[in-house]
Amino acid sequence: MTIEMFEKPLGMRDDFPFIAKKKAELRAKGTEIMQQAGYELLQTPTLEYYETIGKISAIPDNALFKLLDNQGQTLVLRPDMTSPIARVVASKLLKEKMPVRLGYYSNVFRAQKREGGRPAEFEQMGVELIGDNSLYADAEVIILASEILKELEVESSRIVIGHTQLLQSILLEFGLDDRQIEIVREALVSKNSVKFEQIVDGLGIEADKIGSFKALNRSKTLEDWKQWIDFSNSEQADLYEEMLKLQKIVERNGLSGSVTYDLSFVSHMTYYTGLVFEFYGAGSGFPLGNGGRYDGLMKQFGLHIGATGFGLRVDRLLEAIAPDKKYAADTLILFKEETEQQAHERAQELRTKGVHVTLQYAPAVQAIDEFAGLFKEVIRLDGAVNG
Amino acid sequence: MTIEMFEKPLGMRDDFPFIAKKKAELRAKGTEIMQQAGYELLQTPTLEYYETIGKISAIPDNALFKLLDNQGQTLVLRPDMTSPIARVVASKLLKEKMPVRLGYYSNVFRAQKREGGRPAEFEQMGVELIGDNSLYADAEVIILASEILKELEVESSRIVIGHTQLLQSILLEFGLDDRQIEIVREALVSKNSVKFEQIVDGLGIEADKIGSFKALNRSKTLEDWKQWIDFSNSEQADLYEEMLKLQKIVERNGLSGSVTYDLSFVSHMTYYTGLVFEFYGAGSGFPLGNGGRYDGLMKQFGLHIGATGFGLRVDRLLEAIAPDKKYAADTLILFKEETEQQAHERAQELRTKGVHVTLQYAPAVQAIDEFAGLFKEVIRLDGAVNG
Repeated sequence: MTIEMFEKPLGMRDDFPFIAKKKAELRAKGTEIMQQAGYELLQTPTLEYYETIGKISAIPDNALFKLLDNQGQTLVLRPDMTSPIARVVASKLLKEKMPVRLGYYSNVFRAQKREGGRPAEFEQMGVELIGDNSLYADAEVIILASEILKELEVESSRIVIGHTQLLQSILLEFGLDDRQIEIVREALVSKNSVKFEQIVDGLGIEADKIGSFKALNRSKTLEDWKQWIDFSNSEQADLYEEMLKLQKIVERNGLSGSVTYDLSFVSHMTYYTGLVFEFYGAGSGFPLGNGGRYDGLMKQFGLHIGATGFGLRVDRLLEAIAPDKKYAADTLILFKEETEQQAHERAQELRTKGVHVTLQYAPAVQAIDEFAGLFKEVIRLDGAVNG
Repeated sequence: MTIEMFEKPLGMRDDFPFIAKKKAELRAKGTEIMQQAGYELLQTPTLEYYETIGKISAIPDNALFKLLDNQGQTLVLRPDMTSPIARVVASKLLKEKMPVRLGYYSNVFRAQKREGGRPAEFEQMGVELIGDNSLYADAEVIILASEILKELEVESSRIVIGHTQLLQSILLEFGLDDRQIEIVREALVSKNSVKFEQIVDGLGIEADKIGSFKALNRSKTLEDWKQWIDFSNSEQADLYEEMLKLQKIVERNGLSGSVTYDLSFVSHMTYYTGLVFEFYGAGSGFPLGNGGRYDGLMKQFGLHIGATGFGLRVDRLLEAIAPDKKYAADTLILFKEETEQQAHERAQELRTKGVHVTLQYAPAVQAIDEFAGLFKEVIRLDGAVNG
C-alpha cells in the first residue's frame, strides 16, 4: 500500500475550525461545571505501560495501540482515563485527602480492525470521585453529568441506571453458575433481546421462573425491580433500599422524567461493581457517555476504597447538540504599506471590544474578493473601493 | 526490568491539579488572543503516517515514537504541529481562501534516549499563517506571540530575530561550499561560540576576512548587520531593506527594547527558509518558543506558497510565569442524611455566585479534620461543631 502525501491513519480525523471551536467551548463549559462542584483538573500522559494501564483498562487487547519504547518496554496509548487516574490516586494521594474529586478532558485511543467509520481517537470529559463508598457519591456524579448535559444544551437527555451487584445477586438466586452469568452478561451488553431470550432458553432454568427471568430486560422503574428482589436476602434488601434513596435525590434535582431504572443494564467495562449508568441524547442510539461504581479497579492498585465517576464522549455530544448558525469569521481589515499603522490601530480598537479582527496586507492576497467573502465585515484601507 | 504498578514511561508526566488548572488558563487566554487576531483553531490527530509527517517534520528519526497499525503501516505520534497543519492546508483548503490563519494548542511527542529529565510529551500553542509571502505576515506572527507572552504575564520576555536566507547568502559570499555551510550551521545551532570559532579556523577563509566572519555571532542590531551586507547584491540589499521595515513595525508595537537582531541565529528546525525568531523569558536559558518562515515545508506538500508561524512551549511558559498564591479549593459543605437537601440548596446558591463548592456526605470521610483542612471555607451541616 502506497501512502499518499495527504493521508491520515485509519480512524484518525482532523478537527476543522468549526468543530475545533465547538469543542473548545464544550471543554471550557464542561470543566468549569466540574470545578464549580469541587472537582480539580488532572492530566495524565498519553503513553502508559502496557503492563499496568493496558492490562487493567478493561479495553480488549486488540483495541490497544501498542509500541515499544527505547528500553524495549511495551507502551500503550491510553485507552481510557479512569485507569490512569486510579494509578495517580493510588500512588500519590494520601488517605487523609480522601475523598478526592478529579476531573478531566482528554483524548483516548482505540485501535480499529478495518475501516468502519469509527474514530480511533476521541475525546472524553468526565470525573472520578474516589474514596467515598456512599450512595451520595453515586448521586453526585449522576447529577453532575446531567448538569453538564443541560448546560451544553443536549436535547432530551436520558439516563439509564442499573446495578451490577444487585443483578449478580439475582442471577445467583436463579441458580446460575459463574460461566452462565458471564454468558447472560455478554448478551445483555450487546442489547440484543432476541439473543438474550435464546440464551435464557438454554440455561435450564425451572419452567415457572423462566418468564420472570426473560422479563429482566424490560424493567423501567424501581417498582418493576421489586418482582426480582428477595427481601429476605439482606444484601438485596439493602441495595434496593439504597436505590430508593438515590431515586429520591436525583428526582429532587429535576431528573425524574429522564431516568429509566433498567435492572438488566450492564456495562461493557468489566471493572464496574455497583451502580452503573449510561446517558443518551435525542436521535441517536449511541450512548453519550457512561459511568458507575468501580471499587474493583481501585483494588488492583492495592487500595480498598470506593470510587465512582463518569465519562462523556465529546464527538457524540457534538452530534446531540443543536447546530449553531453557520460559522463566519468576524472582521477583515485590508491594508497597504501606507495604511499599515492605521489598520493596526483600528484592529486594536475593535479587538478591545471583543471583535475578532483579521489584519491582512492586501497585495499578498491572490483572490481578494473570495477571501473578503469569508468575513462578516470588511474594512478596506488598501485604496480599493469598499466591497 | 520489572514495571511497578505506579510507574509511567520515560519522560511521561502527570499534571497534578495545580499545574492542570494553570495550563487550562494559559490555553484559554492564548487561544482567545489568537482568535481575536482572526486565527481559527485546528486540531489534527495524535497519530500520523511516518511516510508523510514523520519524514517531513524536521525532528530526528530517533526522537520519533513509532508504531505499526493493523495494516502494517508505520505510524508516528505527531512530533510537531506545523507539518500536520501544512498537510491539512495543502489537502483541503482552497487557494481562494488564502491567506489562511490557523491556531492550535496541542501536545507533541519526542522520544528520549535515556533518563535526562526532559519531557517526552509536551504542549505547544501557536499559529500558522499560510499563503502570505509578505513581511507583514512575519511581523504579524511576531507581534501576536509577543502579545500572548505579555497577556500570560511572562516576565522580561525577549525576542531574537535572524534571517536564514540572508545568512546563507553571506556565507556563500565568504566562499563556503554547501558542506562547510552545513558545518557552520550546526555550530551556530549549538550556540557554542568556542566550537564556532574552532570550526571557522578550519574553513580556510582568507586572513583578512576571518575576523569579520568570527564576529557574525556577536551581532545585536540591524546596524551591526550592515558590515556583512553586500549592497551591490540585490538579494541581500532587498532582504536588509525588508528587515528595516519589519523593525519599524515591531518597534511601533512596543517591542523595541526586547528585540535582538542576531544574524547568526539559526533554528534546529531545518525547514525554515527566511526570517527566524526565538522567544526567551527571564531566568531561563531555554527558549519559550520559536518560529519563522517555512516556505520550503509547503513545497514538500506541492504548494508553492509562503508560510510563517510560531510555537510556544507550555511547560516553559509555566516556569517563566510569576507563581500564583498557593492553590486552595474554595468551600466544603459537609452534610448528613437529614441535611442533604439543605446542603444541595446551599451549594447551588454559592455556585451561582462563582464559588467552587464541594458537597460531601460526612460519614463517608475517614479523616474529616485533615480533609476539611484542604478548603478555604467549611460549612458543617453534619451535626458536628463548625471547625
